[in-house]
Amino acid sequence: MAPIQNARVLFNSVPENYPIPGETTVYDTTQTIDLEAVPLNGGFLIKTLVLSVDPYFRGRMRKPEKKSYAVRLNLSIYGHGVGLVLRSENPAVEVGKHVYGPNILHQEYVVLKELGPATVLEKHPKLPWTAYLGAAGMPGQTAFVGWKEYSDAKPGEVAFVTTGAGWTKVIASAGSEEKVKFMQSIGADVAFNYKTTDTREVLAKEGPIDIFWDNVGGDILDAAIEHAAINARFLECGSISGYNGAHTPIKNMSMVVGKTLHIHGILVFRLLPKYYKEFYDTIPAKLASGELKYSEDVTKGLDKVGDVILAVQKGTNKAKAVVVVAEE
Amino acid sequence: MAPIQNARVLFNSVPENYPIPGETTVYDTTQTIDLEAVPLNGGFLIKTLVLSVDPYFRGRMRKPEKKSYAVRLNLSIYGHGVGLVLRSENPAVEVGKHVYGPNILHQEYVVLKELGPATVLEKHPKLPWTAYLGAAGMPGQTAFVGWKEYSDAKPGEVAFVTTGAGWTKVIASAGSEEKVKFMQSIGADVAFNYKTTDTREVLAKEGPIDIFWDNVGGDILDAAIEHAAINARFLECGSISGYNGAHTPIKNMSMVVGKTLHIHGILVFRLLPKYYKEFYDTIPAKLASGELKYSEDVTKGLDKVGDVILAVQKGTNKAKAVVVVAEE
Repeated sequence: MAPIQNARVLFNSVPENYPIPGETTVYDTTQTIDLEAVPLNGGFLIKTLVLSVDPYFRGRMRKPEKKSYAVRLNLSIYGHGVGLVLRSENPAVEVGKHVYGPNILHQEYVVLKELGPATVLEKHPKLPWTAYLGAAGMPGQTAFVGWKEYSDAKPGEVAFVTTGAGWTKVIASAGSEEKVKFMQSIGADVAFNYKTTDTREVLAKEGPIDIFWDNVGGDILDAAIEHAAINARFLECGSISGYNGAHTPIKNMSMVVGKTLHIHGILVFRLLPKYYKEFYDTIPAKLASGELKYSEDVTKGLDKVGDVILAVQKGTNKAKAVVVVAEE
Repeated sequence: MAPIQNARVLFNSVPENYPIPGETTVYDTTQTIDLEAVPLNGGFLIKTLVLSVDPYFRGRMRKPEKKSYAVRLNLSIYGHGVGLVLRSENPAVEVGKHVYGPNILHQEYVVLKELGPATVLEKHPKLPWTAYLGAAGMPGQTAFVGWKEYSDAKPGEVAFVTTGAGWTKVIASAGSEEKVKFMQSIGADVAFNYKTTDTREVLAKEGPIDIFWDNVGGDILDAAIEHAAINARFLECGSISGYNGAHTPIKNMSMVVGKTLHIHGILVFRLLPKYYKEFYDTIPAKLASGELKYSEDVTKGLDKVGDVILAVQKGTNKAKAVVVVAEE
């Protein structure tokens, strides 16, 4: 079989602020692949079906001297994705099965030497693969493991969730009206747009807060500390307010003592092993039955990845951002 | 019996920066007390023996609108102290016994309507009462309960203690050469003066740190976050760097996510009930036998309290600051 195009998204230059499509990332169609002949060296070949675009992408777009957790210049970017196994020399990865993991290159086809952090997933018949990138994927796992491990949520407590999704009384903020509407639809007690409403005013009225799920950082984190209850738990998951510029310094850290706050940094991969089975045994079925609701913003085409990355950094995406690269 | 002098230390004005003796606090000898006739209203009368002067005093010297946790203008300041019971109408507080608590007014004699957070203490025959203000008192309890509850210390880990006292490899910093020498004498693996040595250089060489015991806050906290190991635990006990001016904002908070740090605010009184018996059953005896070492900076005379408060805020005290008001 003749080689065919293997389009990819390259990391082209380190961004100063926002990652610009065509500049920071470049869609490249010059590479080809012979699907039958490409050597696997004990690994396997997948056809990329769906890719996740997440806020953490920006942190990886570093200068080469900062090595860990980086994407490399002139190489394909990578992230969470699902691929269909076309060929395999690894007995644990059978042809026709699907691989999900954080190490999926943004290419039409990918050869992986080993599973590494990836896993072979079975899909629930009523869920699309995109759901396995969001509510049934890394972001859902983050919420699941972080909340289970650190929230210590008790009846009657007040939780404040940024860019969020309720157990107790939930105050939720997001950066667009559409996200706010989604949060209302899934039962947030108070939902507001933090770009147009003063977070401090909302928290002064609705707080103090016992649990703070933070994806924003900066001044919102400062506001949450200011309006935290005694012994409140802070689940720090991200700080997108500072990804595309400088992080705003935190002025209220000294209040951590008087309020005896507990602040936990959360990276899903450090906690997931403990909750992996429980997550996949319960969450996909609940999403499929509608018991848990989720929302996604689907874009078609690998060539659109750069635009979606920028949208996620600016917060103009409408829900969990996913890119469909190919059908089965 | 005729009334006698009952000297006291009054809170005279809210300080802008450092608390100035004679201005922020005033030693006043105008008040008298009739030890036999003063009404107890069901409470008890104590003769103040020893008083503790601690960094937290500064936080209480607030404007009247900030009510909680404050000392009141034109009234005696208060803190941890030990008094001998002279008279009592409370069957739980017998004459001749000693009362220790955080609610001891800085006066020669104090009438307390109830014990409140105070307790009746028995003294180890080989320990002075001053020890019950330091290593066998609130500061020792803070270290005991905070470490037990949150350090999760494991063999081989690196701890960094500010203004501190060793379980694992201990890096200790303090604000004077004398305190550094004390920390060396009790076995700190690395001890340095943070006012003359760059904390970042020490931590870059001796870290990364798994446990950070923080009494200083501000830039030192930022340095500790920078040099923290994955999953490090931060025990936040105070932030004296900002008590007499403005707290330095924290620039590195976003690193809490990537390093999955755990930051715990500690106030001893919120944890002590869990560890109270264990503390008093073990620590005084170990201090008396010399198995645990402690150091104190003793000043004689209630009239010196203002000077000692200032010394503690400036860090010119040589060890745990205590004031002896009277002998038994």
